[in-house]
Amino acid sequence: MTQTSTLAILGGTGPQGTGLALRFAKAGVPVVIGGRDADKAREHAKELSQQLPDGSAEITGTDNATATEQAGELVILSVPYAAHNATLSEIKPLLSDKVLIDIVVPLAPKNPKAVEMPPEGSATEAAQALLGEDIAVVGALHNVSAVTLNKVDQAINCDVLVCGNQLEPKRKVMALISKLGVNCYNAGLAESARCVEAITPILIRLNISKEVPFSHAGITICPPAEH
Amino acid sequence: MTQTSTLAILGGTGPQGTGLALRFAKAGVPVVIGGRDADKAREHAKELSQQLPDGSAEITGTDNATATEQAGELVILSVPYAAHNATLSEIKPLLSDKVLIDIVVPLAPKNPKAVEMPPEGSATEAAQALLGEDIAVVGALHNVSAVTLNKVDQAINCDVLVCGNQLEPKRKVMALISKLGVNCYNAGLAESARCVEAITPILIRLNISKEVPFSHAGITICPPAEH
Repeated sequence: MTQTSTLAILGGTGPQGTGLALRFAKAGVPVVIGGRDADKAREHAKELSQQLPDGSAEITGTDNATATEQAGELVILSVPYAAHNATLSEIKPLLSDKVLIDIVVPLAPKNPKAVEMPPEGSATEAAQALLGEDIAVVGALHNVSAVTLNKVDQAINCDVLVCGNQLEPKRKVMALISKLGVNCYNAGLAESARCVEAITPILIRLNISKEVPFSHAGITICPPAEH
Repeated sequence: MTQTSTLAILGGTGPQGTGLALRFAKAGVPVVIGGRDADKAREHAKELSQQLPDGSAEITGTDNATATEQAGELVILSVPYAAHNATLSEIKPLLSDKVLIDIVVPLAPKNPKAVEMPPEGSATEAAQALLGEDIAVVGALHNVSAVTLNKVDQAINCDVLVCGNQLEPKRKVMALISKLGVNCYNAGLAESARCVEAITPILIRLNISKEVPFSHAGITICPPAEH
């Protein structure tokens, strides 16, 4: 992957994908947004492009399959969990030599304060099982709220935990996400996604509860006091 | 529970229990350390007492069952996971009207970078199942390293996620832990422990990996940038 390799964001018309597309384009990474409806994705990309400051990379839009083909190497999956497996099945034949970055959290239907994990243990593990071990799957970016992502003029002040069974793809994903100015940490194998994905509903619960003085909490890894 | 109600720490001769005993006593909470061996617990309590500054509350030691009986209301379970269920079975008849604070993480034997969750989903849920719904179980303090806990002159600069099926006991536990000067957050029902307990091996992995510039990481809940 070169610095300017195109990043695909499938489900890029949704709130998470939108914020990520804007931030990556601002950081100089060309983005192709994928959607179920190519026209809608193209239209969305055009709207986002108009919000970008001079010097940003391009945002284009097309259908999910074409976006996957246009990706240099990295493909972000950012769809609602209900569309997770169907989207992966559709693009699976196009993913050889690519890395699938799964940011999907299997929130319980009608209860965003809980996860309903698939039998594989987590969305990331379900993706790895569906795609087979020859395609690298990396779980990442689960715990950054869409609201935070879309406030593109503000720094993201939480950290990103990255997990997956292959180290090199994880390193590539951490290098990509670092371009957004956030700290990335290697959280281990794909099975760590059972924990990392489940942090999101805990944060959503805090945001809803009003027990905390903020509304879009994230997490950070903190050093002990002496550092 | 009054301010000066005695706190029991079962497994209080271990590294987590030791740090907690010192910190709570310093904060004015009388502590009774429980151990399998009453003499050893008494000896340990005596040693810890000598380290306490003037004005601290008392630390005493006895066997686990007697320590449970001496607790005003709150009983911390701080044993290795291998002793989790056996200890709970032993003290179950003594826990009516008390609150069991489960801080145990079911780390995989020989691999502290992974959890091996019990069939109930987590140690906290296993405790609740074993004790029955009439005894309140609250999961807490899983992610604070023993090393951090034992540096008693330094502030704990990570947050504590608290979970359990009953709100009132959770509030009591959050009030207790707040005496250590840390922020406590209600992370939801007992099933959230599947996530909260599993954060610990992720932190242990980071500490071991040398990828991070610190060796006893914790987590904090962070507000978005605008706050």
